[in-house]
This record gives sequence, structure tokens and C-alpha cells, in this order.
Amino acid sequence: MTQPVTSTEPRAVLRGQAPVPSRPATGRPTVVIVGAGFGGLRAARALRKTPVDVVLVDRHNYHLFQPLLYQVATAGLEPEQIARPVRAILRRQANVEFRMTEVTGLDPAGKRIVSADGPIAYDYLILAVGGQTNYFGLESVPRHGFGLKDIPEAIRIRNHVLHAFERAMLEADPERRRAELTFVVVGGGPTGVEMAGALSELIRLVLVKDYPRLNVKDVRVLLLEATDRLLATMPARLRDAAAETLWRKHVEVRFGATVADYDGGRVLLKSGESIPARTLIWAAGVKAVSLTGRLGLPTAQQGRVPVAPTLDVPGHPDIYVIGDAAYLEAGGAPLPMMAPVALQMAETAAENIRRRIAGKPPVEFNYRDPGSLATIGRNAAVAYIRGIGFTGFPAWVVWLVVHIIQLIGFRNKVFVLLNWAWDYFFYERAARLITSME
Amino acid sequence: MTQPVTSTEPRAVLRGQAPVPSRPATGRPTVVIVGAGFGGLRAARALRKTPVDVVLVDRHNYHLFQPLLYQVATAGLEPEQIARPVRAILRRQANVEFRMTEVTGLDPAGKRIVSADGPIAYDYLILAVGGQTNYFGLESVPRHGFGLKDIPEAIRIRNHVLHAFERAMLEADPERRRAELTFVVVGGGPTGVEMAGALSELIRLVLVKDYPRLNVKDVRVLLLEATDRLLATMPARLRDAAAETLWRKHVEVRFGATVADYDGGRVLLKSGESIPARTLIWAAGVKAVSLTGRLGLPTAQQGRVPVAPTLDVPGHPDIYVIGDAAYLEAGGAPLPMMAPVALQMAETAAENIRRRIAGKPPVEFNYRDPGSLATIGRNAAVAYIRGIGFTGFPAWVVWLVVHIIQLIGFRNKVFVLLNWAWDYFFYERAARLITSME
Repeated sequence: MTQPVTSTEPRAVLRGQAPVPSRPATGRPTVVIVGAGFGGLRAARALRKTPVDVVLVDRHNYHLFQPLLYQVATAGLEPEQIARPVRAILRRQANVEFRMTEVTGLDPAGKRIVSADGPIAYDYLILAVGGQTNYFGLESVPRHGFGLKDIPEAIRIRNHVLHAFERAMLEADPERRRAELTFVVVGGGPTGVEMAGALSELIRLVLVKDYPRLNVKDVRVLLLEATDRLLATMPARLRDAAAETLWRKHVEVRFGATVADYDGGRVLLKSGESIPARTLIWAAGVKAVSLTGRLGLPTAQQGRVPVAPTLDVPGHPDIYVIGDAAYLEAGGAPLPMMAPVALQMAETAAENIRRRIAGKPPVEFNYRDPGSLATIGRNAAVAYIRGIGFTGFPAWVVWLVVHIIQLIGFRNKVFVLLNWAWDYFFYERAARLITSME
Repeated sequence: MTQPVTSTEPRAVLRGQAPVPSRPATGRPTVVIVGAGFGGLRAARALRKTPVDVVLVDRHNYHLFQPLLYQVATAGLEPEQIARPVRAILRRQANVEFRMTEVTGLDPAGKRIVSADGPIAYDYLILAVGGQTNYFGLESVPRHGFGLKDIPEAIRIRNHVLHAFERAMLEADPERRRAELTFVVVGGGPTGVEMAGALSELIRLVLVKDYPRLNVKDVRVLLLEATDRLLATMPARLRDAAAETLWRKHVEVRFGATVADYDGGRVLLKSGESIPARTLIWAAGVKAVSLTGRLGLPTAQQGRVPVAPTLDVPGHPDIYVIGDAAYLEAGGAPLPMMAPVALQMAETAAENIRRRIAGKPPVEFNYRDPGSLATIGRNAAVAYIRGIGFTGFPAWVVWLVVHIIQLIGFRNKVFVLLNWAWDYFFYERAARLITSME
């Protein structure tokens, strides 16, 4: 049953081979984009009508809608609903080729990146490699606690939290049972606030029905923030509303609480206080993925690569860095590591590549803040858009509409909306499975 | 923030404690059921109105609808859609308590089971521990190939199959590329037939759109069957229809093909032939879970525990064994290891416990074959019900209705049906994520 061999492969990334031209010659320049997150994907789409060949590289085969990852961690959504295969997203774009492989290095002189499957040559390179959790050197936290940046981590949190309830039901010692049922979320940014709120609602609205013998007073959800404010970019009125709503949803918010150590059983604070807790979720910081340090490019704070206002790397006019991996100041402060920055930078980088090809001068990046949103649970959110702040049910509706619109793929939109509607009306969470033993 | 301690725990399974009475005294006998599969769950429900306290024990927190597991493995359904938390299923049944723990042994003299979290005392015991993949001593197969009995295995198959296509796109060597794209399914029972059909459709209807450069002639799906027939329990006309449909769906069906070894790269057949393939899915046999061998009870073929026609274990009148774990002959042959047997045995075991308590004589188990069904893909199935066989679209509709009805939980029914409708009309599969690197 052997078949005739017709290799239609581009030879750029042939396994274990020496560098070869990135494509069967089309005469068009090749733009390699590393990373299929918000920035990389948007850049690929922005180059849709540009006479270039785009090679998009990611170590995962899917684009993840990270803003809803905390809902996977709290059993509200299924991972498949907030992720979509890159190939499916770009199916109709003829000038793009996807490669699932891990990028390991950069050879700027040879104009190629190094991947686990061989070198890939580029004429222009867009690095959109994204961010990872920043533990600020606390080695014990990633060992015993959980970050929240990808699907496996979200599933691990879900398994761990649900398992804690099962263990608590088998635990005779009241001290140990309370430690099983104490959930500490670290970091008062949007991720920490949304995680703490969703976790408390999972427990108070859903799990109490599953565990009729559970004494809900044994359960604690804490949100630890090192400074004196939640959601630091929002005005004081909204910050206060967020804290108040969290309290109403039974989240103990602690300000000025800096984590010094965690051994899996106790959270040690800088103040010397120790909190017995079997679960610690770290949402206190982000930095550029560690790959940026291995590319031979200069890096600034948080491992981010400093870029010119035109988003290219000084001294490397063919290399653009966008999103969390790029360091650029605006108004005296570094741009935040958030999706809107990455999306807008992608447009600018694509535009500047078009201009380079056309022999025009580049444009400078100009960030337009679309506002910020954080949901705290049922009917509760805070929103700050174009200088207008609002809270409660209206903010929650805005949050919902914005997230459904931004979610990629019509099917994902439909299924997430159905899931949310179901959970809203029936006080349920579909994904309460413990899919692995710890 | 310490809370008053109010322990409402039953003391049966306190961690690391000496055996204690299984419940705060209710004066009612305790029925311990091990396993929340089809048999165990049905038994718990059948005892709903019986004056007993039921303790249901499983190492997972969910009931899995195994007949659709192959659809998770082929990216059609999400695991959350075919599983449901046991606590959610039994929420409204007051006389049942769920314990998530692993059973490790049995002490029939002390009338208690041994679990990872301590002993659990019973007055009556129902062992519904289920089956596991039978590799017939071929050690290399589980090491390099895949079984298909639980969610993690299904996810591993999904990841592996999708990853094979990504690897194939990066592979220059045509021989190695074809090995990446050769998928061998072993076993011509319902699971193997359904798996091979679904895999071929995933590739031919969906993945070809994701991989426009893929030469579909490089892709092979083989179904190896050691005997000369598929779906052995069906009449010849239906067996032939199944084989023909599989061929039409580009599955190479091989009869008389017995696997002798597998090293992850080549499937060696007993005939000496070797098939280069990076994927082998084993659906060729089932045996009782290995726990049955550690309980001190006698075991028959496939590790099954011989039971009396009344389903209790000879010499142990308080212990009932049901489902895949039970060995009982009917009409000269052992009862098959299938869901209908487990469900019907559960009813009989529950009935006999009721009769024991009421001082009545037990009833004997009498298997009523509800017929059998296997789907091969879009609009194609074979069904044999009450002596009537049918194929094609009508059989496929019957298959669909029967599976939706049997799926536990209204939400699961709705979401599976929506998923199927979507995939049917749009030639899609939602769950095409590679969620871990191999």
C-alpha cells in the first residue's frame, strides 16, 4: 500500500537540516512571526493583503484567550471553549503558513531563527513571544503554588481546588481541614480580583450543593495585595467598589500583605504572619517569557526587549518586538503587559513592514487606552472606559459583551454564551471534573 | 479569623484511623458500593428508597460515559461533556454519601473495605469496579501505544494524533512522514470500529482543511482484527455492512492480523509483516480491573470474580459483584463486559439486598440483551435490536437517539447534541487542541 511521494513541503524548517530558503521561491519577502497570542495572530492577519509570505510559529497549536483562563481554573468553562486551533483561525488566509515548533534561538546576522525542528529564515521578524508568571525570585511559590498563564496550569488549579474539597471531607482533624479549605490568591490586579471572585462564587453558589455536610464557615478565600489598592490603574471610586464587592462575596481582601514564602501548607507573610493554606494561586506579576534572554538581544526590566518607537530593535531594523515582550515607555512609564497593547503594536509593526517594503518612512507607535474592565462575579464588575467609570450590573453586561465579541471563533462565542447563561440561571458549573490525581 | 469547629463528618473513613462505625448511627444497614461506573451508579440509585445508608466510593469524582470516549479521542467532544460529577448526579438522593478515595483491599471477616483514607465498614458490599484494557501480556503495547478506557487516555490519543500531523508537516523524509501519518487501531469490536471510523473522518473531513499542503494519500488508517470478522456478536449481513462502510470511509480493514509487538515506530504482526506507524490504539480486549486480584476473592478468566446466579460471591453472602468485574455464564458463555450487563446486574444486586433485609429469598440474574449498536461515522451505523438488523442512516439515527438518552445530565445531553449538530453541518471538530507536548 505504498503511495507515490509528492512532497509539497516548504523547505524552511526541514527537520535537522542546514538553513535553506524559507519557501519555494515566490519572490516575496518572508515575515516570520514568533508567537500566536494576541500580538502574533493580529500581526499575521494585518499582513493578509501585503505581498509577503508569513510563517507563524508557536509551540502550541492553538490561540488561547487568556482573559477567560480563570474561568477554566474555576470550573466555569472548558478549555476548548477559550482556545482555537491556529490553523482553523488562519484557514482562509493564503499567504500564511503555520509551524508548530519551539523557538530556541536567534541568528540576526544570518537572518534566521533557530527552532527545535531546524532554522527558519526571515526577511522580517516579529517577536510576539508573550509573558509568563513573575515570581520575583520566590522559588518555593512555583513549586507549591500555581501560576495562571496557560491551559495546563488552569486545569491543575481546577483539579487541586476540587480535590481539596474531597480531601476535606475525609479529614478528621479540624485544623487540617480548614487548611484544605483555605484558598489564597496573591495579587490585586484584574487576574487576582477575577480569580478570587470566581473562586468564592464557585464555592458559595455551587460546591455547597455538592457537599451538604460542609460547614461553609470552614472555607476561606483570601486575596493578598502588597500595596494599599486593588486594580491600581482604576480611579479610587472603582477600586473601592471592587474591594467592597469582593468582601460581599466573602473574599477576605488584605492590603499590605507581601508573601515571603510558601511551603504548600503555610503562606508566610513578610509581616511574620503565617496563614495555613493548601492552595496558593499567584497572580502577582508578569514578565517577558524567558526566551527573550536567550536571543542575544538587550533586555530591560522584566526581561522585556527595548524597542524604538517604531517597534524595531535598535541596531536590528528587521526585527520587531511587540506585546509583553517589548519594552517601550509612554508618558514616562512602561506600557502595561496587556492584550490591547499587543494588538495595537501588531498593527503598527505590520504597517511598518509594509512601509519598509514600499520605501516609506515608518510610523511611531501611539497607544490608545481602550479602558479596563474586571468582573467580580454574578452581576458585578467594574469598568473604566474613556474616563467614565461604572460598576455593578451595567459594568458586568459591558464586560460580558466585550469578552464575547473578542473571543475568536463563532463556535466559541456561542458555546461560551450558552455556558454562561446556563450557569447564571441554574447556579451551576459544568466542568467540575478532577481529571488527574495529585 | 478562626471559625468555630463543627464536625459533621461521618467517621467511617477518617484519615489514618482505626476502623470505626461507618456512620453516625441511623440504625440502618450500610451498603458500600465500590465504583461509580454504569453498575455502581445504577445500584446506588436503585437503593434510593430502600432503608439503607449507601456509601459510594470511587477514585474519580465523576461518572464517565465510556461509550463516547472515542469521540473525545478524535476531537469531537470535550471531556466535560461526557462526564458528570458523582455528587451532582446524586445530589437529591438523601441516603447516599460519596467518598473519593482509592480502594486498596478487602477484609471480609471484619466486614470492611480498606481505602487509601482508612477502612470503610459495610453490612453489604457491591463491587462494581469495572474493567481495564487487556493487552494479553504484550508489554510493549501499553508502553508505546494507547488504550482507551479513561479521560486522560482519550486526551493523550487526541494530543498524539494531532501532533502527528504537525510533526509530519516538519518532516522531510517521506518514509518517516508516512509513518507519522499511519494510524493503527487494533480490535474489531464496537470500540475499534467506532474509533477507526471517527479517526478517518476527522482526517478526511476536517484535518485536510487545516493542512492544505497535506497529501491525503500519505495518510492511512488501519483496523486490525485477529479473527475473520468485525462486531462478532452481530449477524453476517451487518458485519459485512460494517466492513464495507469502513472501506468506503478509507479505513483499511485487515482480518487475521494479530499484533505480536510494537516499538513505537513499527507494528509487528504475527505473520512477520511489519507496518511503520507512529500511532497504535489498542481496543482489542478488556479484563476486570487489577484490583479484583488483590481482594482475596477467587478470580476466573480476565480477572473476573465468579458469582452465584444471585450475584453474591459463594462463601461471602454479603458481597455482590456486578458488571465487568463479575464472572457469570449465560447460555454456556460468560456474559459480555458491556454496560447493559452492568446496569441490569445493579438492579438485581439492589433487589437481592432489599430481599435479604426483608427476609425474602433472592432472585437470580436474568440477562435481557437490549441489542447492539455501532456507529461508523456520518450517517453510517449498524444496529441489531430484538433480532432486527438495520444499517446506514436509520441505524445512525437510532444510535444517536439512544446515546443522547443514556447520557447522564440534561446539560450534557444539550451540549453534546449541539456539538454534534455543529460538526454535522459544518464538517468541524471543536476540540482540536494539543494540550500537552509529548
